[in-house]
Order: sequence, then structure tokens, then C-alpha cells
Amino acid sequence: MNSYKLVSREYKEQDTIIEINSAGKPVFIGEGYCTIIAGPCAVESREAYIELACFLKSAGVHILRGGLFKPRTSPYSFKGLGEQGVSIMAEVRKITGLPVISEIMDIRDLDKLYDDIDILQIGSRNMQNFTLLEELGKIDKPVLLKRGLSATIEEWLLAAEYILNGGNSKIILCERGIRTFEPYTRNTVDIGAVPIIKNLSHLPIIVDPSHATGKWKMVAPVARAALAAGADGIMVEVHQDPDKALSDGKQSLTPQNFVTMYEQLTKIAGIAEKKMQY
Amino acid sequence: MNSYKLVSREYKEQDTIIEINSAGKPVFIGEGYCTIIAGPCAVESREAYIELACFLKSAGVHILRGGLFKPRTSPYSFKGLGEQGVSIMAEVRKITGLPVISEIMDIRDLDKLYDDIDILQIGSRNMQNFTLLEELGKIDKPVLLKRGLSATIEEWLLAAEYILNGGNSKIILCERGIRTFEPYTRNTVDIGAVPIIKNLSHLPIIVDPSHATGKWKMVAPVARAALAAGADGIMVEVHQDPDKALSDGKQSLTPQNFVTMYEQLTKIAGIAEKKMQY
Amino acid sequence: MNSYKLVSREYKEQDTIIEINSAGKPVFIGEGYCTIIAGPCAVESREAYIELACFLKSAGVHILRGGLFKPRTSPYSFKGLGEQGVSIMAEVRKITGLPVISEIMDIRDLDKLYDDIDILQIGSRNMQNFTLLEELGKIDKPVLLKRGLSATIEEWLLAAEYILNGGNSKIILCERGIRTFEPYTRNTVDIGAVPIIKNLSHLPIIVDPSHATGKWKMVAPVARAALAAGADGIMVEVHQDPDKALSDGKQSLTPQNFVTMYEQLTKIAGIAEKKMQY
Amino acid sequence: MNSYKLVSREYKEQDTIIEINSAGKPVFIGEGYCTIIAGPCAVESREAYIELACFLKSAGVHILRGGLFKPRTSPYSFKGLGEQGVSIMAEVRKITGLPVISEIMDIRDLDKLYDDIDILQIGSRNMQNFTLLEELGKIDKPVLLKRGLSATIEEWLLAAEYILNGGNSKIILCERGIRTFEPYTRNTVDIGAVPIIKNLSHLPIIVDPSHATGKWKMVAPVARAALAAGADGIMVEVHQDPDKALSDGKQSLTPQNFVTMYEQLTKIAGIAEKKMQY
Repeated sequence: MNSYKLVSREYKEQDTIIEINSAGKPVFIGEGYCTIIAGPCAVESREAYIELACFLKSAGVHILRGGLFKPRTSPYSFKGLGEQGVSIMAEVRKITGLPVISEIMDIRDLDKLYDDIDILQIGSRNMQNFTLLEELGKIDKPVLLKRGLSATIEEWLLAAEYILNGGNSKIILCERGIRTFEPYTRNTVDIGAVPIIKNLSHLPIIVDPSHATGKWKMVAPVARAALAAGADGIMVEVHQDPDKALSDGKQSLTPQNFVTMYEQLTKIAGIAEKKMQY
Repeated sequence: MNSYKLVSREYKEQDTIIEINSAGKPVFIGEGYCTIIAGPCAVESREAYIELACFLKSAGVHILRGGLFKPRTSPYSFKGLGEQGVSIMAEVRKITGLPVISEIMDIRDLDKLYDDIDILQIGSRNMQNFTLLEELGKIDKPVLLKRGLSATIEEWLLAAEYILNGGNSKIILCERGIRTFEPYTRNTVDIGAVPIIKNLSHLPIIVDPSHATGKWKMVAPVARAALAAGADGIMVEVHQDPDKALSDGKQSLTPQNFVTMYEQLTKIAGIAEKKMQY
Repeated sequence: MNSYKLVSREYKEQDTIIEINSAGKPVFIGEGYCTIIAGPCAVESREAYIELACFLKSAGVHILRGGLFKPRTSPYSFKGLGEQGVSIMAEVRKITGLPVISEIMDIRDLDKLYDDIDILQIGSRNMQNFTLLEELGKIDKPVLLKRGLSATIEEWLLAAEYILNGGNSKIILCERGIRTFEPYTRNTVDIGAVPIIKNLSHLPIIVDPSHATGKWKMVAPVARAALAAGADGIMVEVHQDPDKALSDGKQSLTPQNFVTMYEQLTKIAGIAEKKMQY
Repeated sequence: MNSYKLVSREYKEQDTIIEINSAGKPVFIGEGYCTIIAGPCAVESREAYIELACFLKSAGVHILRGGLFKPRTSPYSFKGLGEQGVSIMAEVRKITGLPVISEIMDIRDLDKLYDDIDILQIGSRNMQNFTLLEELGKIDKPVLLKRGLSATIEEWLLAAEYILNGGNSKIILCERGIRTFEPYTRNTVDIGAVPIIKNLSHLPIIVDPSHATGKWKMVAPVARAALAAGADGIMVEVHQDPDKALSDGKQSLTPQNFVTMYEQLTKIAGIAEKKMQY
């Protein structure tokens, strides 16, 4: 008997497919679909974000990411535009018709984000912020739950159980690398987590190769691996000028590199019997 | 140049000694003192907690611990008495005259805890809950900051920097074991962290051998090691009847075992030039 | 400046492609080729090994594996047929025309293995057995060097440097999972190691998803991921009746599952611009 | 039922105490004794080694260490004096009357070391070099078995079981730090391993704080912690001029620092009911 229940394959055999409704066509995440989420680590300015978002839409991206409230290891680092960036994301969502995703760190920010953000992300450091999990269990809004830096598969599923137990079943799991002894990469992506989750749970799982590796050169190979292993999509960081990014520039793809990767991913998705949406 | 500043030894050469004022005599934590914090994992009932607290006082304990809001991996586990347990701790604090410590998981609970709890604990899972760190930086109340399960020394000091940067300098660091590959113990206590922190920072550091090991037989040896390595104290779990504890029974000492350990610790403290308080 | 030199991409820009000559057509390992190595964990009997080998040849395998000298954690476990199994592998090699690979644990066994084994494997536990590395550096025989359980990328490349420095440049690196805190899988396959090695070194790299995961259900997804990430091949365990295997049955594929996986791998290899050999 | 047997406390309840006979008085390692092993990482020259050894004897050291065959991560590092250093250790052993310990990496070196070295050390990288374990199981000579970098307690005890199963019961276990994510120290000393081993096995256990931490400032605190946790002794590196050491200078104590530490250790040993020998 597992310690988790509602998230398990035993409890619900059929794959959960999440429908994201925004201004444009609905986007689906789950078995059978390959969903690409892309955008900058942090929203830095209105102009740059609109420009990048329009490019990403034209390049086939399904959901736009953008950090507003950034958890930073040091209190002296850039922490994102916060509340003032919400309207930028709302505008971009209207212009492109694409759903947007952003991280929520503090439940007191829920009202600011609720209307304009289509998917709320729980970051690695908050995977066991049980207060946040319980509150997001009460709302009717998709939640992307990143795996904690040193969370076991079981702890991760139990964190999802908190949300599902509250009544919200729209949960997307996101593998983003775990902490190991290896110093060459920021984290070690646990590619095996993809088939394990598919086996143990009915929830969709995507992979974030940008945070997992911390190096842009590794993003495309790891993204391809993720889809080949059965992931339902990937989330990557793209920046017009990575060297000038206010955070995580080293792991951001240029638009050109993104396009090259997208072509490869389309082919892998085909083999994995997943279809890229519209 | 380190990424942290205010917590560093370069910034403030002299050891920070924290004075805890409660109903009785003040208790000090920091260089020169050996401070023993003990109590049950969770406050389970008024009678049991009062009885244990009186015993612990007579056994020489300086600060009483007691969990009210418990972070639990599974949503189905006992989560503590919460708000209704606060009055029990307040009563025990009055009866014994000893300061009390309890964990805060959600900043919205601050008002409930502020008047009756002398030291607010930030648990491992919340070490990078930056919202919580920032809010506790604004108050004038000692904070015990546990090291995250997979936090590096630098990340831990940066979490303390968040609190200090907000204006609160009453920070006690607590090593409680890190996550490694070893399955025999719940965590691996990083004993080296004690001299490292003493070297890098002016803040006091204590060790929690109960959570670090998960096995009561290992608690006394690891507690002795902590003081021998230079720690300013320890925090341990004690339960009248560990087999019936609602949480963490396997790592709780019986009162009898606690007394035996206390004698050993008094001797080690003497060698380490630390004095047990009153 | 790196601590390794001869194995680096800076020293030799062009990919090293290793030609394995056995009784039949030569097999190549390296950029542009996708090489499949398969066989049982241990050679258990002449009949079973011949039967399986013939099947694997017909299924498209390029190199046959078979354990003779098995490193076992416990002194009481089955340690392989040792010297008496060499003639079985020699016979299978003649029958199938395929090259064979087996592990060498003790340099004193070199004479027994030299004539009949085409690739000598250095296991994870011996990755820093410098004596063995130095001796295999002196011979003209391909060496497959598995990554140590907790070896960094740099330590792994330095172990290869030992061999290359001795004069033997026929080195195949094999990622087989690293040790982490995650208890669900035996090890965590470091998929990022594939693009890293391709970037830092000219040596070919393959992945062993059987030892990396310890669970047969995960073997095919991780094998697909390995090729998608750019690996030059994979090495997997296959057994006619995994439940009765003398070692590692839980991670062995049945012949049927192997065939299904092979088809998937052929497609991924095509996308990765690698060709399956004959 | 454990996978190990002969090394277990169930098999033999009484502590194993090992008697080392050299030119002078016998030295004991095991419960009730506190044994200090010290010396340079590598024997570098006859004069320096004799001088240091005489100092260490006068400072109360019981066994002299000295590296002759050094396992080095890079093939380009200094690998020790090898065979030509044996006579230096033999001379020092005669002059001081103290037993000497040195590492054996290759079983083919046994004849060179057998007569002049009192304790043969198996290094971390060779903890699962089963060939070496089996061969040292056949001889009547004490073996110090270091824990592997990422070896579990169970794997370590099984490695000792290999030696004991061969007939040699003179085994000293040595905790020397495990590999974790923490970058500040070379390794993380697993202080909990001391009481665990004492609980599970009858074999003596010592701690090597020099390799475990990689920083000389941490050596004394961790050595004190080791004894306080119940270890039967410690092994440390000392060098007349650490800045000029050919290997591991950063973790070597100066003679002066060694003396200060020795005084502290004598006090801790007294509390731990261990006596320093003669």
C-alpha cells in the first residue's frame, strides 16, 4: 500500500489530461499530446517580453512562461517585477492568445495572479510548503508542481496528493533535476522519473531541461531525451540576448537555437505517439 | 567575496550571543554557553506535556520544544494541535519559567504564536521559503533556522542573511542532517558544518541529533559529538512513552535515557569550555 | 586548463571511432553509428547462452555481453563461471560471428580473457582501480570503462586518461547511473552526461539502462532517452527467463520486450543521424 | 537477517580488539583503547620522515602512517615513492619502535610490503576491489578498511565480510567521509557511522578527519567529535611544512596543531572511557 492514494494509477487508471483555456484555442497537457512551454526566466520589460512572446508563438510554442516573483538564493539578487509584471503577462496573453504560466511563492499573492495567469507554478523550494499546497488545492486552476531539489518520487507524489486531496485535480508534475555530487551541471536531471511517474500515477509529467542542467548547450539533448522517455512536454527558457539576462542567462536558448530544437522535438514526439498541438 | 555579508565573520568578528527572556531567568545561546533544548516532537495533550516539561526542567533543560504546526510529508498524517496547543505551551512556560520554541510554517500564524512562543523555528522544508524568511526578518523575536535537507552551507547562510537583512539579528542556526544515499539513517548529520559555521559566521549553531539520525540509540553519541565539535547546544526529542508517540517515536529518548545523556554532555561541555546554564 | 588532456576534445577534435574485429564483419562504435550490446548479466550455462546469443543476433544485436567474473557486494553471492565460462563465450563468438564483451576484475586474469574476449569491461567499482587502468593501457584491445557509482565527469575522464596515457586509445565510456538519495531506482541515470562527454571528449559514450535503473520496465524508456540525447549505443541485459536469472533478473528484458525496444531505438537512431550497423 | 554474518554483533557479541606487534610494545585497537595514528600523507624523503616520526612518537602517537603507493585521480600526479620508500618506513619503525601502516593498491605488491608494514590499508577507491579483499583475507596481518566514497554501511560491512570470510579477522574499519552535494568540504564525515558500526559489528572503528574534511582547520573539531561519538581512535595527516607537501597539504596539521589537538583528545578519551596507550 502506497502512502499516496488519489494521485495513483491504482486509484484512477486513465491518464489525466488537463485542458488549459485562455484567450485562444484550448491547450491540452497529458498523454497523447506534446506541449512546449517557453519564455524567459524572468519578465524583464514589456517590449522585450511582447517581442519574444510573438516570436515563440510563431515558432510553435503552446504556453508562455515568465517569472514575476522569483525565489532567489541571495536576498541581494533581482527578484522579478512582481505585481507590476502581471499586466505585461496579461497583455501578452491577449496579443498571442496563448495561456501563460508563472510562479506563486506566497499565497497572499493569489488574488494578484488569479485572473491573469492560467497556470500557477510551485517551485522546487516550495514543493513541501504545505500551506501553499493546501491553498492551491482549494482553487480551480491548473498547478505545475516542480519536484524539490532533493525530493524522492514518493515525496513528490505526496505533495501532489495534498493538492488533489484539497479538490484540485489539475496538476502537472515537472521534473527539473535533483541535487547530486556532480559539480559540472547545476542539477542532475532524473530521466528515469518520467517512466516511473507514468507508471505510478495518472498525472501528466513534463521536464524542464533549462534548470536541470544550467547550461544551454545541454538543453536540446536533454529535451529530446525527455520526450523519448515519454514526457508529455518540456518547459524551456529562451532569451533574445542570454548574455544580458537578469537571471539564468547561461541556461537560456537563443531564438535560433530554440527553432532548431523544436524541429528535433517534433520528430521525437511523432515516434513517441504524441502530437504537437495546432 | 562571499555572497552573504551580514552573517559573516568578516562583517562582525565577535560571536553573537542571543538572550532569551521568558518568565524565569534569561537563557543565553552562543559561544561560551551550552544550551539544551528538549521536548516532545509534537504537543499531544496538556497533561502529558506539563508532566514532561516539569521533568525536563528538573533534569536541567534550558528551553522546551513542542510541535504545534507540524509539516508532514503525507496529507493524511497527524499535523499537530495547531492553534489550540498554543495555550498549553503558554501554561507550561508559566509553570516552568522556561522559554519555549515551536515551528511556524505559515506567516499568517504569526499573531497566534507571537505572544506565547519565545523562539520561532523555521523547519528544513521552509529554509528557502523566502516569504517566511523576510517576514521573520521584520520582527524582534529569536528565530531558529534549520538547515534544508539538501542545502549547502552557503545557501543556509544566505537564508540567514535574508532574516538579518530584514533587521532581525537573533538567529540560531540548527544542523539537523542532510540527505545522502545512506539508507540506514534518516539523514546524515554533517558534523563538519559545526566548525565551518563557527569559522564563517558569528551566529550560534546547535545540532538536532534526533531528526538527523531518526534512531534514538544514535542520539546520545551524535549529541556528544556535536558538543565536542564546538556546537553551542543541542535540541532533542524526549517522550514519556516513545512507542505511543503520534510522530517520530523511533527517534525519541525516554526520560531515563535523557538523564544519562545529560551527564555525558555536561562533561563534554566542560572540555569544550562551555558552561551549562544554571 | 583541464586536468585531463589526451581524452579531451581540445587535444583531438575528431570523434574517435573504434573498430571491433571479430570472426564476422567489423563493428564500429562512435559518432554516426548506433551500437547495441546485449546479453545476460552472467553466462549461466552453455546451452542457454548459445540459444540467447543466436536469438540476439537475429534480433539485430551487434555485440554480445556476458558476465564471467562478477563483482558481487556479498561474498556469498554467485560470482560467475569465471575461467570455465571463457570457452562458452569463445564458442558463441564463433557461432554468431559477433564480438563479445566481458568484465575483467583482476589483471591476473588477462591471459585467460585476452584471446577470446573482444572488449574488456572495467566495472563501476573498479573505475579507480588504477592498477587495472594502467595495465589495460598497455594492451591493444578495446576497453569499456563504466562510470563509478559516485564518480564525477572529471574523475571518469581522468580514469580514461590513465588508459590513453598508457598507449591504448580504444576506450568506450559507459554511463550506468550514479548513486543518489532516490530509493525507487537502483541508481539515477545521468542523461546529461551524454551531451557533456560529447562536448568535452572525442571518445564514444554508450548508456547501460539496465544497471542504471534496476527495473526492466524502465529500460526501454531510458534506452530511447539515451539515443535521443546523443549516445553512441546502449548495453542492456536480456534473459530468457528473468525470474530464474542467477543475478539481476529484475532488470533483464525478455526477448520479446527486447524486440519491441529495438524497433523504437531504430527510429530514434534515425532521427539522431546514427545508423544501426548491418 | 542481515546479508553479512561474521562481522556482525549477533555472530560475535564481544568486541574485537586487535593487537599490533612491532619492534616495541604492542599496540591495541578496539573498545577501551584510544589509538592515534598519524604521519604524512606520503613519505617524501628519508630525513623528513624520520624527523617527523620521532616528533610524533614524542607527542604520544601510537602508530605511524605513511603513503608509499598513492592512488591519484590524475595519472599526472605524484604517486608516492613506491617500493623504494618501504625501507624508509622499515627504518623508522626500528628507530621509533612504533608500528607502521601503509596502503596496498595492487596485490602484486604484497611481498614488498609484507615484512615491513604492520597494517595494510585498503583505500576508499578499493573498498570493493574484491580481488584485493579476498587476498588480504588469506593473510595474518591487520587490515585497515576505509569506507568507499559512496558505500553504504551495509556494503562496507560486506567488504569486511569478504576479508573475514577468507580467515583474517584483524580488521579495523575507518570512516573517512562520504560524497555528498556539499562543496565546501572534500567529503562529509558520517559521524553517525561510528555508533551504527559499534551497534552492528564487533569490529573496531576509527575516523580519518583529514581526508573527510580536506581542511586542516576542521581536523581537530571532527577528531574530537569522533572520539565523543565512540570511535576507537583517529588517523590524521601531519606535515612539518604543509604548504610544501607533495600531496594533501591543505588538510595536514602542523606539529604544533597536532600537539594542541592531542591534549583535547586525551580529555575526550577519558570521558569516553577509553585510555590512551602508554
